[in-house]
Amino acid sequence: MELKGKKVAILVEDMFNIYEFWYPYYRLLEAGAEVVVVGSGRKSQFTGKPATDVKADVAADAVSAADFDGVVIPGGYAPDMMRRYPAMVKLVADAVNSGKMVAFICHAGWMLCSAGVLKGRKVTSYFAIKDDVVNAGAQWVDEAVVIDKNLVSSRTPDDLPVFMPAVIKVLAG
Amino acid sequence: MELKGKKVAILVEDMFNIYEFWYPYYRLLEAGAEVVVVGSGRKSQFTGKPATDVKADVAADAVSAADFDGVVIPGGYAPDMMRRYPAMVKLVADAVNSGKMVAFICHAGWMLCSAGVLKGRKVTSYFAIKDDVVNAGAQWVDEAVVIDKNLVSSRTPDDLPVFMPAVIKVLAG
Amino acid sequence: MELKGKKVAILVEDMFNIYEFWYPYYRLLEAGAEVVVVGSGRKSQFTGKPATDVKADVAADAVSAADFDGVVIPGGYAPDMMRRYPAMVKLVADAVNSGKMVAFICHAGWMLCSAGVLKGRKVTSYFAIKDDVVNAGAQWVDEAVVIDKNLVSSRTPDDLPVFMPAVIKVLAG
Amino acid sequence: MELKGKKVAILVEDMFNIYEFWYPYYRLLEAGAEVVVVGSGRKSQFTGKPATDVKADVAADAVSAADFDGVVIPGGYAPDMMRRYPAMVKLVADAVNSGKMVAFICHAGWMLCSAGVLKGRKVTSYFAIKDDVVNAGAQWVDEAVVIDKNLVSSRTPDDLPVFMPAVIKVLAG
Amino acid sequence: MELKGKKVAILVEDMFNIYEFWYPYYRLLEAGAEVVVVGSGRKSQFTGKPATDVKADVAADAVSAADFDGVVIPGGYAPDMMRRYPAMVKLVADAVNSGKMVAFICHAGWMLCSAGVLKGRKVTSYFAIKDDVVNAGAQWVDEAVVIDKNLVSSRTPDDLPVFMPAVIKVLAG
Amino acid sequence: MELKGKKVAILVEDMFNIYEFWYPYYRLLEAGAEVVVVGSGRKSQFTGKPATDVKADVAADAVSAADFDGVVIPGGYAPDMMRRYPAMVKLVADAVNSGKMVAFICHAGWMLCSAGVLKGRKVTSYFAIKDDVVNAGAQWVDEAVVIDKNLVSSRTPDDLPVFMPAVIKVLAG
Repeated sequence: MELKGKKVAILVEDMFNIYEFWYPYYRLLEAGAEVVVVGSGRKSQFTGKPATDVKADVAADAVSAADFDGVVIPGGYAPDMMRRYPAMVKLVADAVNSGKMVAFICHAGWMLCSAGVLKGRKVTSYFAIKDDVVNAGAQWVDEAVVIDKNLVSSRTPDDLPVFMPAVIKVLAG
Repeated sequence: MELKGKKVAILVEDMFNIYEFWYPYYRLLEAGAEVVVVGSGRKSQFTGKPATDVKADVAADAVSAADFDGVVIPGGYAPDMMRRYPAMVKLVADAVNSGKMVAFICHAGWMLCSAGVLKGRKVTSYFAIKDDVVNAGAQWVDEAVVIDKNLVSSRTPDDLPVFMPAVIKVLAG
Repeated sequence: MELKGKKVAILVEDMFNIYEFWYPYYRLLEAGAEVVVVGSGRKSQFTGKPATDVKADVAADAVSAADFDGVVIPGGYAPDMMRRYPAMVKLVADAVNSGKMVAFICHAGWMLCSAGVLKGRKVTSYFAIKDDVVNAGAQWVDEAVVIDKNLVSSRTPDDLPVFMPAVIKVLAG
Repeated sequence: MELKGKKVAILVEDMFNIYEFWYPYYRLLEAGAEVVVVGSGRKSQFTGKPATDVKADVAADAVSAADFDGVVIPGGYAPDMMRRYPAMVKLVADAVNSGKMVAFICHAGWMLCSAGVLKGRKVTSYFAIKDDVVNAGAQWVDEAVVIDKNLVSSRTPDDLPVFMPAVIKVLAG
Repeated sequence: MELKGKKVAILVEDMFNIYEFWYPYYRLLEAGAEVVVVGSGRKSQFTGKPATDVKADVAADAVSAADFDGVVIPGGYAPDMMRRYPAMVKLVADAVNSGKMVAFICHAGWMLCSAGVLKGRKVTSYFAIKDDVVNAGAQWVDEAVVIDKNLVSSRTPDDLPVFMPAVIKVLAG
Repeated sequence: MELKGKKVAILVEDMFNIYEFWYPYYRLLEAGAEVVVVGSGRKSQFTGKPATDVKADVAADAVSAADFDGVVIPGGYAPDMMRRYPAMVKLVADAVNSGKMVAFICHAGWMLCSAGVLKGRKVTSYFAIKDDVVNAGAQWVDEAVVIDKNLVSSRTPDDLPVFMPAVIKVLAG
């Protein structure tokens, strides 16, 4: 129970990659963390890709980065939806800037681009958005998992078995 | 990497519960196990519920219980399909009878009913199939996870965070 | 109009086999019976497999076996849903025990398992659930239609052309 | 077994109304008829509305009206597809003109319009195509089932319990 | 902006052909017309074929032909739905009879059949409904676009690039 | 026929926005242009969002910018797919750099980001990708259509009626 007492937000919007949402969700619970599903506020239930539904526990504008020990952002096209909501972008920006663990996988790098927090940071992402991540100022590397201080990033669902140990390690401090 | 060197079969057929397949799949990989997806042999790719596809690595009649340290059976309606294939049922029966770890969740108890290995064993299952499990001779209890020697059983996807530590513990011996 | 004056319940829940619901439904009407669609009470409209919708006339806990001359239970995975509702199981148990005609096809045998009324009865079912039916105490035979006093059972939609004459014959007395 | 020795064609194309196909299909089998599913020849399997698949036994241009004692045409939008295939239209025209029983329900009247056989005949149909049926020369009435010598017609699936006895009566002669 | 000041109704019901709805919709806007989506009144939003949704601005019984300079009717199976609503049929009949431009493509000819306005008119349509159009009294020709005074007709989405210039030309007078 | 003799490529990949593909497709044909559908080469047929299928005439690596007078890029999530194929990105880069008309709408701006051709250019896009477009060096404005020499950009399907006249004007020179 290495995350006993830790509280982690998982962000959600439509078209979230179901593997990248559900594996971290159950894995963090297994590790003893309290998990809070944070939606954009646009509605209360969201549909993944492929289709599975998840209810948000709370909307982004009702929480703040200070409430959490870390934030996990799943990929799919959900990050393209999330970045349209300033409260979600602010939650990520504040978490990064206050040194909280922020983990992102696949297309979730878009949220960090919009949060303006990638300048000089070493990260990875799904290769399709590499140009956007590089244009945002990051150093992009092609590795299964990259830990740069409080940032943990991976490329695809195949990286989940190394992504989550890194997330847990950084969270556990 | 507590399962380094262990080899585990996950059974698959159409309508497998996606949470109960994918969480054990990635979790066992994270723990260092070699994971083999074993299909019924009816076809090579199967579709979950809700829809996600998974390719089988091998068909049941091409492997035997002796090849594995354990077998994990996801629920959904897949077990109703699996039990129609004698090679799959035999794989489970042989695994149980030779003392290998056999883990089953939700509707997967049907496979143990058809394998004829529940007489006098203490297990749980999704409540809808309790009558079938009891008629097969088991002692049924309503607990999140039940370990009876080499048998590990749980009720629903909500039990996954306690199901997998039990699976790993029994596998790791 | 050999069923003039007879009243028959057809049970329904999600994932009912559409052939096994609609053929008996229209056939009983053609024969002059009054047909009542009885749902589990979980909701008022149910979706078949493949998809067609049917509205329940009434919920199981609002009727009793004494209201009907017979009960027809379609297959599909609907019986796995139906058996979760005690009022539906009781309706079937009471109907069998009071000598009313009870007809079941395909996976519908699960309802008789949960009703605890198969001990010593000769029946058939879809072959996938044979183990559950046998474990419940029945004598299982592989025939297109089996009539054992008030019980009428068949295996698959292909048996419908012999299932319904048997249902009508037993109902007509 | 009032139709023992009779051979009946049921026409099929995509978007056939599933109730209007399957009820006659099983009902004719129950009555002892030999049933042949005749497709347009465009492909070998067709999808109903809502979705169920049916394989054609034979294509329209490989049979002739002389091979059958009667033809049944289900509705849905399948008749809009069927009328594009001259062999299907000819099969219907020949059957009507040679005095074979021809039964049609719902939108199936379009096939009779294209076969040019409605002049002076008394029929019914789904109300939406009444104008086409009247323009083709028929006398249209709003009744659950209409028998005009060898023509049997009904309006909707709700009429199936009176449509099929009429079909059987005319076929049995 | 050759249609500045013109007001055009586009009719809509479920199963409208999406190409035949959306191309005229945007094209008329591009030409400067005011476009009003007129539904049957059965509901407020309709689903095309393949699936795209469109909201009706107004129901047919709340407008009259006098309100418009022209009416465009898309095909698909929507016309089979539209002709069930007397207010929609009247709108088309009045528009034709008062000399307003009426454009119809594919299966939309059914609406003109039900409006009783095809006697002696030269038109085209999807070939599947040619018999209905001819039975309604029209002279049917197989051309990409046919202009007969205020009537503009085409056969399929492939004809859209010649259909719309004809619609605009007749509308612009 | 203001585009007689002009040849225009429309790019396609899965999840193309159907309005943004089909309206330009038919509109360019109406204006007299030759339209070539250019796929990524990953497969030969692509599925839009919502679902409509389109066959590619040719793959990107079999054509070059010199073959065309202009390129149109629809939005949806197709551009996220397109940018994964270097031949598609090169086609866009070469077209922009050789002064050919390049039109992009909604999420299609991602292709220009990956082509590295936005430095100092004035464009618009769907607001969700504004950060990526700005990070790529563009001057982003919120207008229905923006013409910056050979670049034509719009925001959403609602802009199509002003987007296409701009495309045609720039193409016609």
